[in-house]
Amino acid sequence: MNRRNFLKTAAAGPALLASGLPALAGTKAALRGTGDMGIVIERATGSILIVETTNRSILGRVSGLGDLSHASAVYARDERYVFVFGRDGGLTKIDILEQKIVKRVLQSGNAIGGAISDDGKLVAVSNYKPGGVRIFDTDTLEMVADIPAGSKTVGLVDAPGRRFIFTLYDAGEIWIADMSEGRVPKLTKFPDIGDLPYDGLITGDGRHYIAGLFGQDGLVHLDLWREPLKPEMVLDHYGRGEKKLPVYKMPHLEGWALAGGKFLLPAVGRHEVLAMDANSFKEVGRVKVHGQPVFVMARPGGRHAWVNFALPDNDTVQVLDTVTLKVIHEFKPGPAVLHMEFTPRGHEVWVSVRDTGKVEIYDAASFEKLAELPAQSPSGIFFTARAHQIGL
Amino acid sequence: MNRRNFLKTAAAGPALLASGLPALAGTKAALRGTGDMGIVIERATGSILIVETTNRSILGRVSGLGDLSHASAVYARDERYVFVFGRDGGLTKIDILEQKIVKRVLQSGNAIGGAISDDGKLVAVSNYKPGGVRIFDTDTLEMVADIPAGSKTVGLVDAPGRRFIFTLYDAGEIWIADMSEGRVPKLTKFPDIGDLPYDGLITGDGRHYIAGLFGQDGLVHLDLWREPLKPEMVLDHYGRGEKKLPVYKMPHLEGWALAGGKFLLPAVGRHEVLAMDANSFKEVGRVKVHGQPVFVMARPGGRHAWVNFALPDNDTVQVLDTVTLKVIHEFKPGPAVLHMEFTPRGHEVWVSVRDTGKVEIYDAASFEKLAELPAQSPSGIFFTARAHQIGL
Repeated sequence: MNRRNFLKTAAAGPALLASGLPALAGTKAALRGTGDMGIVIERATGSILIVETTNRSILGRVSGLGDLSHASAVYARDERYVFVFGRDGGLTKIDILEQKIVKRVLQSGNAIGGAISDDGKLVAVSNYKPGGVRIFDTDTLEMVADIPAGSKTVGLVDAPGRRFIFTLYDAGEIWIADMSEGRVPKLTKFPDIGDLPYDGLITGDGRHYIAGLFGQDGLVHLDLWREPLKPEMVLDHYGRGEKKLPVYKMPHLEGWALAGGKFLLPAVGRHEVLAMDANSFKEVGRVKVHGQPVFVMARPGGRHAWVNFALPDNDTVQVLDTVTLKVIHEFKPGPAVLHMEFTPRGHEVWVSVRDTGKVEIYDAASFEKLAELPAQSPSGIFFTARAHQIGL
Repeated sequence: MNRRNFLKTAAAGPALLASGLPALAGTKAALRGTGDMGIVIERATGSILIVETTNRSILGRVSGLGDLSHASAVYARDERYVFVFGRDGGLTKIDILEQKIVKRVLQSGNAIGGAISDDGKLVAVSNYKPGGVRIFDTDTLEMVADIPAGSKTVGLVDAPGRRFIFTLYDAGEIWIADMSEGRVPKLTKFPDIGDLPYDGLITGDGRHYIAGLFGQDGLVHLDLWREPLKPEMVLDHYGRGEKKLPVYKMPHLEGWALAGGKFLLPAVGRHEVLAMDANSFKEVGRVKVHGQPVFVMARPGGRHAWVNFALPDNDTVQVLDTVTLKVIHEFKPGPAVLHMEFTPRGHEVWVSVRDTGKVEIYDAASFEKLAELPAQSPSGIFFTARAHQIGL
């Protein structure tokens, strides 16, 4: 951090005194809006950076979050508190203004992500050990409901009406937990949806839940506006008759792209992004890409989707045109590009490059690099605007 | 406000001591997130209420904003500052944490609304007198660019890439002002788009600009992803051969609804909401409604759109199902329902009822009334989540 940025940061609030030093505990938090803030997961050190996107700066660091090797986060509806889900089952509530842990519970032995209810009162966690989903009060982190499932759970999202939807990895089921009546979940279960669902997403309008399958080609689509509710297989032959490639890293659906009336989805184990019509749920094209895609993320307000890749191609980012389905730009930020996050209206994008210890910031239209920030093994980047979006 | 709410408010920050009293000037602003905040325009008194949606309370009042008889607002990207556009040409920047006016300029004789650029650095105002659009620095409110147009301007929105789009009411033109090169606007003009365009919208993905026409049936559609750019008339015969009704209040397109692959748009001077396919831009149905619709607003995460009406039917709200195109609920909050605003993920909705001096808050799913807040002739309600959305 150069001197000018340091001074700006120091004046703005609790300062990160130098790269690598934690924030000063107990310094007075500055009055500021939280709409332009965010966090960066530092996966190797159990810490997060607190950042802001207006001046592209680091405001501080919070440590003591346990194993963040596959961490994600959701925001309270006031955009002041963030809930971080650690791999070790840790659920940590952090105040990003005061830059401190408010509460931390070790709620399971191994967890994979979470969601927050539309009214902001419940936070749910998807567990590998002991499986199932647990739901907590966002004020106190006291457990409100325990939903055993006899299976690892994945693809946990919030849905409108104080509901959570998730998928059972081992059992191949989708479950809806309706919490609208209070503390007792009303469960709706859909068995036999397909082989080894590995992740899920819900569209921003709260209508479509889509689960990806690892054990077979295809995805499962549940239209939440249709009665009776019935999961249906889509794109079920996308790799038919072709030799399967080894899968180096499971793709993520959370970073799905919906743009111009098409979903763009990472194909499992293939160097392809699949384009699916958002009305018919039929395949309408494919894009050959540089490697096995991990995240395929739509630029808000743009016709572009940005793609990163699994090993051995994880030094590269490609940008697709969602209308023409062509690759229009490629660059190599460096080894282990793990995540990308757009500013809310899409003018800039932050990119985590784990092995160079940098977060790089680009103009999303010109592709020009605007800034770099130091970070310790950065992975997930989460901006506060997610608080206002269904499924994020 | 009952005692319990008063205490809660007092503990949370600068208090509105009793209904109708302004906030204490100079009280210390409380540290808080800004993601659950908002403002309510008090049109008759030139003031705004600062509110928060988590506990459904009023935090304070800021006065001295001039003529707010047709006011609107946009938020800075940090969700701390709001820019209020008054009818008298006043442009006022307010700090909603400190509850004070930061800067106020009288930038024209008569204005109709504004927009903020995707990078947050420019705020643009649409003027009736002297017409045209003026663009200001969001930090200082100094004028950056003056775009005379020889016409009243309407339907001003932000578009990705530091652009503004607006429509010339008298001249019947759409203009794009591209500010990506700095302070000098690069203008693209589309003449002869139709007769008396009165308002415009841009879709949340930044792709489609739609202008409504008052002088003839139909709307004008500009697909910003298509080359060459070419405005096209859509729904151009929706009232053909039928007797025109007198128009009591111009509908607003800002409150357009896009849900389930359909646009729902208020028909001018008719007791109808028009449904237009979001891909083909063809009419796919109509809903007979209670009166002349003013706002047609999609509930985020729901399949519903809420509609309010012009005189003499402005005591009523109807809720439409966007899939079946049926009215599924109707209620009468009271005389002069002027505006509705959903919480960001759509679980609740705030409704301004001008002539009872109340803002009413409803559960958007059960339609149950949850709370009422006192307000002086309330009109527009604007929550901070708009900061993150293209076109709002």
